This record gives sequence, structure tokens and C-alpha cells, in this order.
Amino acid sequence: MRGVEIMENNQKEKSEKQDYNHEFPLPELQKALYLIPVTLGDTPVMQVLPGYNHDVIVGIKHFIVENIRSARRFLKKVEKSIDIDQLTFYELNRHTDRKFISQYLNPLEKGQPVGIISEAGCPAIADPGADVVAIAQQKGLRVIPLVGPSSIIMSVMGSGFNGQSFAFNGYLPVEIPQRVKALKKLETKIYNDDQTQSFIETPYRNAKMIDTILSALKPQTKLCIAAGITTPDEFIKTKTIEQWKKEKSKIPDLNKIPAIFVLYK
Amino acid sequence: MRGVEIMENNQKEKSEKQDYNHEFPLPELQKALYLIPVTLGDTPVMQVLPGYNHDVIVGIKHFIVENIRSARRFLKKVEKSIDIDQLTFYELNRHTDRKFISQYLNPLEKGQPVGIISEAGCPAIADPGADVVAIAQQKGLRVIPLVGPSSIIMSVMGSGFNGQSFAFNGYLPVEIPQRVKALKKLETKIYNDDQTQSFIETPYRNAKMIDTILSALKPQTKLCIAAGITTPDEFIKTKTIEQWKKEKSKIPDLNKIPAIFVLYK
Repeated sequence: MRGVEIMENNQKEKSEKQDYNHEFPLPELQKALYLIPVTLGDTPVMQVLPGYNHDVIVGIKHFIVENIRSARRFLKKVEKSIDIDQLTFYELNRHTDRKFISQYLNPLEKGQPVGIISEAGCPAIADPGADVVAIAQQKGLRVIPLVGPSSIIMSVMGSGFNGQSFAFNGYLPVEIPQRVKALKKLETKIYNDDQTQSFIETPYRNAKMIDTILSALKPQTKLCIAAGITTPDEFIKTKTIEQWKKEKSKIPDLNKIPAIFVLYK
Repeated sequence: MRGVEIMENNQKEKSEKQDYNHEFPLPELQKALYLIPVTLGDTPVMQVLPGYNHDVIVGIKHFIVENIRSARRFLKKVEKSIDIDQLTFYELNRHTDRKFISQYLNPLEKGQPVGIISEAGCPAIADPGADVVAIAQQKGLRVIPLVGPSSIIMSVMGSGFNGQSFAFNGYLPVEIPQRVKALKKLETKIYNDDQTQSFIETPYRNAKMIDTILSALKPQTKLCIAAGITTPDEFIKTKTIEQWKKEKSKIPDLNKIPAIFVLYK
């Protein structure tokens, strides 16, 4: 049994491990598709993932991943002693054929737990993982989401905005006229439906996005800029559009920092 | 220094602690309002909270809480050796006057970290914590959300639905005609805006809510029932309305189990 081998390795290497303690005995894994969140940026694993996730990860042999290299790096970060060569990886990205995705669940149908590892944050939220989960649900297979950092939830928490009703809208259109139209539509929902609205942008376009937001929305509308969540660069500030315009110099350089923008009245 | 005392206690008691290991040295806390998630139900702390949260919690002396008794219980669960009598609690609920809330942040303005502890899940999401965060943001105080279990995110992850665009809508109206109207409005958003829609219900009304959903929505619309997330009763299943109608007997008794309902096309 591979799980037992890994457990023995862990015990041997326990004195070397500084970053991530875990519980014994290891939990009995379910025949399930485990949704495994990863860190946002270079944050230490123990800062943002429960110790339980470690214990689940060391029991899984089959991983569906967006990028094999970064998934391996993540697994090594979680558990130094993990033997990567004994694991099977199934690559999943926008180009992956749906009929292959279904086959990725074969080990689970034979009774072995399978993990999905996202590129950043929680799988199946803003990545292709949702397709695998949908197929697992159609097949009546069990799906178990694990806890991890979600910039969507953490930005709403930190904004001070309405958390009883909020929407995440992914990316807005890139072309300025359509983007302005989309922003104004979100602003209408804030006032008419009392619903907090959030969205993301590719980091190198963050500064431009902020310019467009500041010019398109009402002065009294509130914007929370939440960037680098859980990292040493973390910046989570709420001001009105009017205030942001006056204090634009206080906005850090977000050219390379993932940010989420949250709007409310 | 209180933090040091606790650290020593921890080292002494380390052999007794089975549930929650942490890292040394303790992190240097920021002058910030820390948003501290709690477990959903009786789940062990280490299953759903990062070890880092423990280390932050033992460094904080001032806590804004919804219910002092359950906050104390949570803190004891996180760290057995914690000396509750040395902590100050500020109660926050729907009846708390907004001018008092502002005073709750006095220790932070004097340079000491303050924590907000929610009743379940993440603070400032579906509880009064958002008011405190809003005041902190207005005062230009730093706000740091910690990672924890969010049934809103975990239900979307587990549903297999669109995670690129989704909305959480809190509670729907209780009166049947208004409730049916609200459900149909959400269904329209699914098809017109391609946006996943979720909402919650008081547990004793869960069964009735399911009946209303099954009778009000289109047969091909998909419903994910996500209940008891992270607990031993966890149930996360996606089926079409038509399938749920046929397999209603497979829905567990959710009379006392917190559930979140997620809809998509």
C-alpha cells in the first residue's frame, strides 16, 4: 500500500519538516474526486491550507492538473518526501478533449481517490476543473471540495461590502466601449439589487482597468481594490470613486500582482 | 508579553495536542483587523483552518464576536491553553448600535490587532461583521482576511457549475408567491447571463424549499444541493430538476443541516 509507505516516510522525515505539520493517523480517504486548492502566489502552504489537505494529498495517486510542472512543485511544497514518480498526472486545459476528461475519472470509478489541483486558489472556480466536476456529478461520483484561499471570498470579506448578496463576474470585455457598458451594468445591479459586484483582470491590464473604472462610475460608488491576497504585497482598500481619484498615487503598482475589483454602493 | 507566555504553554503541552499543530516562531502580527473564520459545525479545526490561523489567534487579545459563548468555545478548540480571562470580547449583532461598533476598533487605533470571529464560516459574508470592516476601511485601518471554510465557494466548486460567473443571493423571501417569483428570476439569470445562482435557507425550512424549487423551475435546470459541507454528513449532489423529482427519496433529511442551493443550466 502506497499510502502506508508515504506515512512511514513522513514519520522518518518529521524532524526535517518545519513548514507543515499534520495529524496521525492519516484520514481514511473516500472514493471521491477531491478538489485541492493551492496557494495564491509564493505564500507558505501552512498559511493558507489546513493540515488536513496535506493528509489527503499524500493519500492520492491520481491527479488531474492544469499544468504538470506547477502541480509537481506544489506537491513537493506540501510534502517534501512525496515520490512524484509514483503518481499519475492527467493534464487538463482549455484544449483538452471532453472525451479524455471523462477517462480521467477511470481510477475513481475503480475505487481510487482522484485529486484536481488548480493553478491558483480553488479548483473549478475560475479554471477548467468545473468540467471534470460536472462529469463526476453526472456519473454519480462523490465530489469533496477542500478548504483553501479564494480571492473572491476574501475580497468580499475585506471590502466591508454586502456579503449577503454578491456576484463574481470573471473577466469584463477588453474593448473600452463594451467594458464601460459592462461596468455601468454592474453599477446598476449594485443600486437596484443591493448586490456587491466583483471581477478580475489580467495583471498587466490592472492599471488601465482602474483608469476605466474611475472614469466610468459614479463618484459615490465604492471600489475595493484587493491585490496580492495572502501574499506579503497584500493590499485591500475600499474608497469611493471620488476618493480614489484624489488618492490615485496611493494605489501600488499592480502590473504583476493579481487583483480583484469589488464594487458596492 | 502574553504571546510569549502562550508560546511557552504550547511547547509544554505540545505532546498533548493531537488536533492542531503550528509553526514556530509565531508570526509578527500587523496592526490590523483580522477576519477569523470558524468551522462549519463540529468539524475538527485542523480539517478546515490553516495552522497559521492558530498562530494569529493566540497573538490577539481583542475579539469582536457575534456570540461570546460560542467564540470562547471556538478559541478553546483552537488552543486548549488559551487564557480566556485575559481576552476582551466585544459583542456584535443586529441590535448593536453603530456608534458602539466604531469604539470596538479603539484597540486597533492604539496599535493592537483586533479579531472578528464569525458564528459559522467566514466573517463579514453572511453576518454583521461587514459593518465593522466597513468602518475599519473608512478609518483607513488595515483589514486582513484569513482563510477558512466558505460554503458559498465550496458549493460552487462541488457543483460542477460555471465558476467564472456566479452570484450568492442570501435568503429568498419566505412567502410562497414571492419565493417562486425570486426563484424564476434567478433561473432567468442562469439562462440569460450564464451565471450560477446560489442561496440559503434556514435548516428547518430546507425540505419545503426543495419542494418549491422542484415545482417552480424548468425540468432541465440543474440544482446542486450542498449540505453539511465539511461535516461527516456532507452531501453535495447535482441533478436536473427532472431527475431530483424522480429521485426525491435520495435526498437526506436536511431539517437540521445547513444547506446551500445552487442553480445552473
